[in-house]
Amino acid sequence: MRTFNRLESEVRGYIRSFPAIFTKAQNAVQTDENGREFIDFLAGAGSLNYGHNNPVMREALIAYMGTDGVIQGLDMATAAKKNFLLTFEERILKPRKMHYKMQFTGPTGTNAVEAAIKLARNVTGRQNVISFTNGFHGVTLGALSLTGNRKFRDASGATLTDVHHAAYSNYFGPDVDTVAMLDKLLTDPSSGVDFPAAIILETVQGEGGLNFASLDWLKKIEQLCRRHEILLIVDDIQAGCGRTGTFFSFEPAGIQPDMITLSKSLSGYGLPMSVVLIKPEHDVWKPGQHNGTFRGNNMAFVTAAAALDHYWSDNKFQASIDKKAQTVTTYLDKLVKTYPAAAMVRRGRGLMQGLAFKDPNLADSVTTLAFQNGLIIETSGGSDEVIKLLMPLTIEPEKLLAGLDILEQALADTLSDLNANTVKNTEVTA
Amino acid sequence: MRTFNRLESEVRGYIRSFPAIFTKAQNAVQTDENGREFIDFLAGAGSLNYGHNNPVMREALIAYMGTDGVIQGLDMATAAKKNFLLTFEERILKPRKMHYKMQFTGPTGTNAVEAAIKLARNVTGRQNVISFTNGFHGVTLGALSLTGNRKFRDASGATLTDVHHAAYSNYFGPDVDTVAMLDKLLTDPSSGVDFPAAIILETVQGEGGLNFASLDWLKKIEQLCRRHEILLIVDDIQAGCGRTGTFFSFEPAGIQPDMITLSKSLSGYGLPMSVVLIKPEHDVWKPGQHNGTFRGNNMAFVTAAAALDHYWSDNKFQASIDKKAQTVTTYLDKLVKTYPAAAMVRRGRGLMQGLAFKDPNLADSVTTLAFQNGLIIETSGGSDEVIKLLMPLTIEPEKLLAGLDILEQALADTLSDLNANTVKNTEVTA
Amino acid sequence: MRTFNRLESEVRGYIRSFPAIFTKAQNAVQTDENGREFIDFLAGAGSLNYGHNNPVMREALIAYMGTDGVIQGLDMATAAKKNFLLTFEERILKPRKMHYKMQFTGPTGTNAVEAAIKLARNVTGRQNVISFTNGFHGVTLGALSLTGNRKFRDASGATLTDVHHAAYSNYFGPDVDTVAMLDKLLTDPSSGVDFPAAIILETVQGEGGLNFASLDWLKKIEQLCRRHEILLIVDDIQAGCGRTGTFFSFEPAGIQPDMITLSKSLSGYGLPMSVVLIKPEHDVWKPGQHNGTFRGNNMAFVTAAAALDHYWSDNKFQASIDKKAQTVTTYLDKLVKTYPAAAMVRRGRGLMQGLAFKDPNLADSVTTLAFQNGLIIETSGGSDEVIKLLMPLTIEPEKLLAGLDILEQALADTLSDLNANTVKNTEVTA
Amino acid sequence: MRTFNRLESEVRGYIRSFPAIFTKAQNAVQTDENGREFIDFLAGAGSLNYGHNNPVMREALIAYMGTDGVIQGLDMATAAKKNFLLTFEERILKPRKMHYKMQFTGPTGTNAVEAAIKLARNVTGRQNVISFTNGFHGVTLGALSLTGNRKFRDASGATLTDVHHAAYSNYFGPDVDTVAMLDKLLTDPSSGVDFPAAIILETVQGEGGLNFASLDWLKKIEQLCRRHEILLIVDDIQAGCGRTGTFFSFEPAGIQPDMITLSKSLSGYGLPMSVVLIKPEHDVWKPGQHNGTFRGNNMAFVTAAAALDHYWSDNKFQASIDKKAQTVTTYLDKLVKTYPAAAMVRRGRGLMQGLAFKDPNLADSVTTLAFQNGLIIETSGGSDEVIKLLMPLTIEPEKLLAGLDILEQALADTLSDLNANTVKNTEVTA
Repeated sequence: MRTFNRLESEVRGYIRSFPAIFTKAQNAVQTDENGREFIDFLAGAGSLNYGHNNPVMREALIAYMGTDGVIQGLDMATAAKKNFLLTFEERILKPRKMHYKMQFTGPTGTNAVEAAIKLARNVTGRQNVISFTNGFHGVTLGALSLTGNRKFRDASGATLTDVHHAAYSNYFGPDVDTVAMLDKLLTDPSSGVDFPAAIILETVQGEGGLNFASLDWLKKIEQLCRRHEILLIVDDIQAGCGRTGTFFSFEPAGIQPDMITLSKSLSGYGLPMSVVLIKPEHDVWKPGQHNGTFRGNNMAFVTAAAALDHYWSDNKFQASIDKKAQTVTTYLDKLVKTYPAAAMVRRGRGLMQGLAFKDPNLADSVTTLAFQNGLIIETSGGSDEVIKLLMPLTIEPEKLLAGLDILEQALADTLSDLNANTVKNTEVTA
Repeated sequence: MRTFNRLESEVRGYIRSFPAIFTKAQNAVQTDENGREFIDFLAGAGSLNYGHNNPVMREALIAYMGTDGVIQGLDMATAAKKNFLLTFEERILKPRKMHYKMQFTGPTGTNAVEAAIKLARNVTGRQNVISFTNGFHGVTLGALSLTGNRKFRDASGATLTDVHHAAYSNYFGPDVDTVAMLDKLLTDPSSGVDFPAAIILETVQGEGGLNFASLDWLKKIEQLCRRHEILLIVDDIQAGCGRTGTFFSFEPAGIQPDMITLSKSLSGYGLPMSVVLIKPEHDVWKPGQHNGTFRGNNMAFVTAAAALDHYWSDNKFQASIDKKAQTVTTYLDKLVKTYPAAAMVRRGRGLMQGLAFKDPNLADSVTTLAFQNGLIIETSGGSDEVIKLLMPLTIEPEKLLAGLDILEQALADTLSDLNANTVKNTEVTA
Repeated sequence: MRTFNRLESEVRGYIRSFPAIFTKAQNAVQTDENGREFIDFLAGAGSLNYGHNNPVMREALIAYMGTDGVIQGLDMATAAKKNFLLTFEERILKPRKMHYKMQFTGPTGTNAVEAAIKLARNVTGRQNVISFTNGFHGVTLGALSLTGNRKFRDASGATLTDVHHAAYSNYFGPDVDTVAMLDKLLTDPSSGVDFPAAIILETVQGEGGLNFASLDWLKKIEQLCRRHEILLIVDDIQAGCGRTGTFFSFEPAGIQPDMITLSKSLSGYGLPMSVVLIKPEHDVWKPGQHNGTFRGNNMAFVTAAAALDHYWSDNKFQASIDKKAQTVTTYLDKLVKTYPAAAMVRRGRGLMQGLAFKDPNLADSVTTLAFQNGLIIETSGGSDEVIKLLMPLTIEPEKLLAGLDILEQALADTLSDLNANTVKNTEVTA
Repeated sequence: MRTFNRLESEVRGYIRSFPAIFTKAQNAVQTDENGREFIDFLAGAGSLNYGHNNPVMREALIAYMGTDGVIQGLDMATAAKKNFLLTFEERILKPRKMHYKMQFTGPTGTNAVEAAIKLARNVTGRQNVISFTNGFHGVTLGALSLTGNRKFRDASGATLTDVHHAAYSNYFGPDVDTVAMLDKLLTDPSSGVDFPAAIILETVQGEGGLNFASLDWLKKIEQLCRRHEILLIVDDIQAGCGRTGTFFSFEPAGIQPDMITLSKSLSGYGLPMSVVLIKPEHDVWKPGQHNGTFRGNNMAFVTAAAALDHYWSDNKFQASIDKKAQTVTTYLDKLVKTYPAAAMVRRGRGLMQGLAFKDPNLADSVTTLAFQNGLIIETSGGSDEVIKLLMPLTIEPEKLLAGLDILEQALADTLSDLNANTVKNTEVTA
């Protein structure tokens, strides 16, 4: 590890939580240089929904490379890009009766978010954007202004403007209707909240601690947008691509956002790729107004098309996600009941669930122990108080259970240590 | 092309200049679906310095994929990343007696720029940053505030803050010392220019029209930064990685920036990858303060290490760039002399040269004709008035000449058309 | 009036509501050029709490002018300023056991607000400030960012930064605890609300529609500020100087703000004067950091001292305000009951009360009719839906009643017209 | 002075330079509580062009007060306001063939500036404003963004946006054409300077150190504005009202600004009053979009009309200013020559001249000594390096000379002390 300490910036993060040098990875297992295997409940922060080194995508990619296929195409037309566009239309848009145009942005989620709010501002001629408590949309300055977390905001060293943060679904508890509140702020000409271009939201807040919007809340937000003629942007970067059970996370709510951002697992193989889906009537971009060198990462187009063809041609994949999600739900509910001392609450939906702890130290201790026992798993939330289970959707059922068992053991050990310490402390003070 | 028109956003740009569907590419040649070959003087906007599908990197990549090597590693330690770090130290830093730590940002140049200015603001506790006329640093909001071009700035729809744009080297002609001007603005406590955290610059302005800073100007800017205790950031995303003849574009000036941003050709294979090099004393990042899903694009680490090993172990590659650069210089000088009616000026240095036209329409006409004749070449500059020659550094000498010849023919034809039209117009009015 | 139309900007406002040319004024009566008298329920927008041409202040002022007393003293020491400082200490601060230092700002309320938030930002090193829905703090850019009304905000043409607008007391109805909400937003490190330097509030929102904070809410806000180490600024420009019955409007709540802004009636004679009261421990100003030419309006110091001596040496004045306030309350309650068709709600407290209409057109019609009948009275609120009764505190009881009677008549006539129109419209459609 | 130390904020400034308690003042003399007289070369920072307690204005004011004339009129029509409007038209606008509408803003210069830039932004729909190095336009946030001095800027604690500071006339010496530079920045679509709504300037920079624009520069700036369709705003708050010899300071340049801000000496008696003059075609204000309680300071209207009638009905007053200005110029030129060791440069024009020192300590020492010897005189400039002579325009010739003599003595004494110290230091080190 000395190489990393010597040569890599202090900003490095995951390497501190998972201090091993990984050499290979297959589906839900990462192997370190000593041959030790770790079950992966992080899945590239949601960018490996189809697992590591998925053979379907790998095969397509190696074949493509063998033909001297274009690797970097800027935003020129290539056969690979055309194939991706048509596949996305066929496998995703048409079956859902959705009509969108696609913008290929720089291949990072934050870039897609920056493009979406720019476009919303140009469409409406307004500057303000409504974002939500605990939202995370990236760390470049425009996306950062939408992001709630002070750790990231304070790191900007600059001024974040043109955004009002409103209360998310259930933020003030089940009795407070946060859509009605927002409606009042927008309707009242003297609320101090400037009339916005757009509302941007995640249906499940991946980094914000697995808070999720009720389907009713989503519908009411869409109605609010229509009523006030505000654009609705769903940032589906982490919750999309099947993570919650459907390709788009908002499908169960029956809404049609004006724009959708996708990234992370879109390429299917962990390759950088990002897009904004735009309702055609809002596609007022002028040529080249938003650019970027790596918009044409054709390897990603190849693997993305392969993933869509393989996993989204019928309902089998969705069914398998639902089944695994049920396994996770049941297991987590059991943990909540079995370990009342941990004061945990289950959060999230689909394969984007987790356990919220009152005490962030507990969450930290559990994930640390879990890694020692062979499980890669991280925390999220404003105080890192939520353990987030983000396994590949393709994880083998037995690996899923093995991972859950490691998690339970780490939880049990943490509580037992805690108990021992309390007893010891009591003895000392006595 | 109807697929693209139907499904891709109006924002698409290069596809309009180069209306062909490309299926494969090798070194400096792109081939379209009809088998037609085009010489590439664009090189992925500078991200393909080693050409398309370079066999050295491809071989390394396919070998890596065959071992189930980690593809997406977030910012965890992987063997591929370690190897890249050590190779970069060995091939680049040590021979140049440079000491820097490396931050892996989201794999786009704009993200590296955003990270660098954040860090500079945190190091100094100041908000303002000095950027230059015609500078281009990306289009996410923080980077965009540094970018000069109104086309991009106006597209933001938001407020760009905390940046003062100063005059670049030679901006007001050879008689005006723009460093002395900036010095006065910083020294005068009443200039209205807030004391800055950093100065960010490109040594050659790739998008801004191939203006380049004299070595003396660069040295004086470095001295200015030292004198005022301001950080110096060189954005070497387009001019670095050998483009101007040396690995870093600023080497001939003998300066040591506080931070350097690299991207584009860093991966060597056109894959998304970006880093910020940071002098160790400025690496005040706290873990995770700047993040991003695709910081661990391990494929890029593999090809980047292969490229560094292959091309930067001795001076041969540099020598070959110099030789080709001389060819380009000579050819362009000849064009300037041969076609005085075009009122052209040669600009740039190394393999980052071009022809500035007084009339942007001429530049547009020449590049359009050139494409029809089999050459991919673009314009740059605030009014797209500069034809930019950005071929792979590895281009075969005969392809280089062939491309130059197509360019000359397009120029000659444009001028001849122009002449014909003028004659015709004269006849009509007469 | 043609002179005004020809020579004065379209921005003029009150002149449109009260189209008369006034030549003189005494206590609560203004007289126009034709000798017509109008009862004044506007009192210089609250800057004439002691009435027009109050003889006590006039006498003091003419005496001062006769001695060649300094008229304009910048922020130099003058005898008049010293006397004001000592009088303010003796009559206001000491009896209330308050310890504050006084900053003389440019003599407008908006300037005092600008100074207060600057100082709060300097004290804490934070940028964000919390302001409230329907708050009004002035229209210069810093104060404007705190102001809620879109009419004013949109007129800025610029970007308003560094302020979060939170929900005022009772904003979401009696069941929603807006202090608890704000507490959550400040406590949650991921709420998106940057940690603020200060909270600024009016205890009664003069321009915002006479919403008033409950005493309990004010106490809880003070506790919130102490708990989070945020400064509390009370903008008492309109509600202070006796308007609500006590010198400071917040006295009944028993709170001690960190800063208090005063203006409007402070000079006692309608002369421009503004101050910020600052708890000594927060007085971190460096000499001259905030300046302004007219900080030393010594005429205002003379009349202000006279007003304090005359009205605030004992409790008689306060008692008279309370009595008149009771008269207003009773009268307005009667109107609410007598005219249910108007769907009015009584708002405010002290001599800062009014009637909120559901339909802003009704409010407009009533005030227009009232003026025709000899009463100067205005609307406030985000939609100008609240008729605001802001008579001099020194109004003669019979004038008070006469004014109220004119108001009732205007209300009755408006409703009668409305009824007639409805009947007519019904006839037409029938 | 203990009263002030105990009760007034640390922000107080002039009181530290002039530590005396003043009781009365007449024309160019201020008298302290001990009866000591001081000649006034500060003139209320330019707000007492007609001297202290000018009997013409006093008489008019006392007469007005005796008739119960309206004191505070908000922006209602009053006889006093009407008279001022007509007098201004008759005495100022008509003779100069100027057509402007007048906006009465809050009665501080900073407020007039805020109103002017708001209006310019609304007229053009653009946000950026060009302001100049060493410009001073006030310290409320909008005006502050236009102000150059870091002392004030840093005190804001907030982010100053939407302004680009360009180089003033002669800023880079006589050989550099700063209008041509600005023209290039505005013409170049890639300069990074956003296209502005307006250019705002002072013809002589009162606070910025008496730099003054050449008439040629002013004409060229006006042409630049016309060519680019940018509004030209002249902030004539300090340099106007006769200070430089003509009513408007820009008259000799023959330009017609789109807006003009006036304040300081406008009321003629040191009373707070401010206006924006607006070319009728730009008066797009909607009623009430910019407001303020003290826009109707009728006392100021009375004295302002009296001053205009008395001093601006013929050319005598202008002629007397010219004569005194010549006296000052001659005297200062003599000082420059007589005391070469002080390395002084004469700056400014009209009765707005001063001496710029290389060493700010000298300037400080001279003004300190001068006050001890009975002269009130201040420094200006970014480093307080310029002694500014700002006497009442009505100063008696003998007082003018007496003041100049005190200044010379203070200069001589300072240099003599300096010399003595140098000798002493030389002895010590020897």
